[in-house]
Amino acid sequence: MSEFDLIDALLADEPPLPSWVSTGPGDDAAVLAPPPDSEWVLSTDTLVEGRHFFAHTPPDLLAYRALAVNLSDLAAMGATPSGFLVALVAPGLDTEWCRRFSAGLRAAAGDCGARLVGGNLARGSLAVTVTVTGTVPRGRALLRSGAAVGDDIYVSGRIGGALAARRTLEGDAAIAATLSGLSLDDVPDPLRAYLLPAARVELGQQLRGVASACIDVSDGLLADLGHLCARSSVGARIELASLLVADVDPLEAVVAGDDYELLFTVPAGRSMQLPGNDLPLTRIGRIEHGAAVRLLAADGREVASAKRGWSHF
Amino acid sequence: MSEFDLIDALLADEPPLPSWVSTGPGDDAAVLAPPPDSEWVLSTDTLVEGRHFFAHTPPDLLAYRALAVNLSDLAAMGATPSGFLVALVAPGLDTEWCRRFSAGLRAAAGDCGARLVGGNLARGSLAVTVTVTGTVPRGRALLRSGAAVGDDIYVSGRIGGALAARRTLEGDAAIAATLSGLSLDDVPDPLRAYLLPAARVELGQQLRGVASACIDVSDGLLADLGHLCARSSVGARIELASLLVADVDPLEAVVAGDDYELLFTVPAGRSMQLPGNDLPLTRIGRIEHGAAVRLLAADGREVASAKRGWSHF
Repeated sequence: MSEFDLIDALLADEPPLPSWVSTGPGDDAAVLAPPPDSEWVLSTDTLVEGRHFFAHTPPDLLAYRALAVNLSDLAAMGATPSGFLVALVAPGLDTEWCRRFSAGLRAAAGDCGARLVGGNLARGSLAVTVTVTGTVPRGRALLRSGAAVGDDIYVSGRIGGALAARRTLEGDAAIAATLSGLSLDDVPDPLRAYLLPAARVELGQQLRGVASACIDVSDGLLADLGHLCARSSVGARIELASLLVADVDPLEAVVAGDDYELLFTVPAGRSMQLPGNDLPLTRIGRIEHGAAVRLLAADGREVASAKRGWSHF
Repeated sequence: MSEFDLIDALLADEPPLPSWVSTGPGDDAAVLAPPPDSEWVLSTDTLVEGRHFFAHTPPDLLAYRALAVNLSDLAAMGATPSGFLVALVAPGLDTEWCRRFSAGLRAAAGDCGARLVGGNLARGSLAVTVTVTGTVPRGRALLRSGAAVGDDIYVSGRIGGALAARRTLEGDAAIAATLSGLSLDDVPDPLRAYLLPAARVELGQQLRGVASACIDVSDGLLADLGHLCARSSVGARIELASLLVADVDPLEAVVAGDDYELLFTVPAGRSMQLPGNDLPLTRIGRIEHGAAVRLLAADGREVASAKRGWSHF
């Protein structure tokens, strides 16, 4: 199987490229035409087998995850996705694997606008590096650094869902068989939050001009709020009772990674009714003076958290 | 050693970011402000230990190579580099390794304008994926697809230099000790063509509006000319005697990879005097009808080549 056969398989079912892609796959580099008065937003993330995804993960679910976690970074910036590059390292590939992989990319992109514009194949231990690019109107990117004392803290969706799903998988004695038998269309509900995370791309764009700061919850809510506070030179308090939590302990949920919800701050008292968005947006606390992120129980007492979330390295 | 200590070490010696980087490392994504009326050029390439670089390669030389091979793709598009992202997968890291790695990135970037704007660290088998981005004036990217019958074919520099250097290394019984003892400033001349390839970024920009098609010689001259001809729906003939070849057989040089010179076509008879460029530019053949790439000896006879160059996978 030659590299070119594999690339053909990866591109076989791709629809025609949109107008903003001047040059797609097949040249030395991709060329994208940005809208006028825009800035470019770029992020890259690698998934390594056995560390960021389970061995035996089918190619469509792997590809879905690799793109979704990157789109989540664009969402956190309020960016409109445009293109992505895939650098795939694998011990061996066949055309069927490649077709399923590219179906996973298309599923993760959905109708958010992100299109495969280039990439690279290399032989080695299985790992996928996706680089995403998107645009924001000039000066309108949502940064981590804009939170101010008194701002309300919000999070989208439900926290801890990925942890609950991962536990279900890890408790499955036949995990290899279960995983390898799955495909995009038949992931059981209890596993979806982990295997098919939804990047909040639409919400991120709606938050431009609304949120004062934003980050995605990839390392765990507490750790990610810590990153946001550090960049904004502020502290925060979280009211545990207000959190919308999946079927896990709230103290576990706040340090669990992989939820890919958006955590953002909004000037105090601002209404968070966003048009046409049925994703729950929950006010979970407030930005404070200082540098600490404090967790408060329902009775107002401060609660200690055992750990701080996912470490990348 | 925490991820954040490592990132601090990677960024420790970086000069202040230029004006076109609105948001650099430390947020969910980088934000770049493009010049008006420009398009964006994006490419990604992975280097895997043992496949794209020797085990025991010091971190500065690894980083240099990882960025240079990507900048070479931007050069082939005629792009002006702006930013790059580094996704580094490694079994373990320390701050000294990271400092040397970032010194290698800075050396490869030189004064071409490319700046580290983001990245990602993950644990696994050593591999580096760099994604580069640059700009071209709208519609001015050099593509592989523009070659026309009758165009002259040129190549920059000397072909086969990387092969000669790699042979010197492979013939070294103490290769591990030799390699691990090297650093950016003391690579012996016979090894430089392989270990410190120079991306022809300045030449690429000079070729905008001059070359009808362009590609970088990464897979081997014959293979890369084949890619260019395929995208342009033309054939080509190469006059072997005209090639500027390093200390290897010309028939080996044309199928050797890793030279990172630019191979380009120019309308027939156009003078190739480029201002302030002392890199040799050699006319090596002509674009023809058909689809074949033919090699001609000095007496005009066609010569067969044993192989077609590097296969990525």
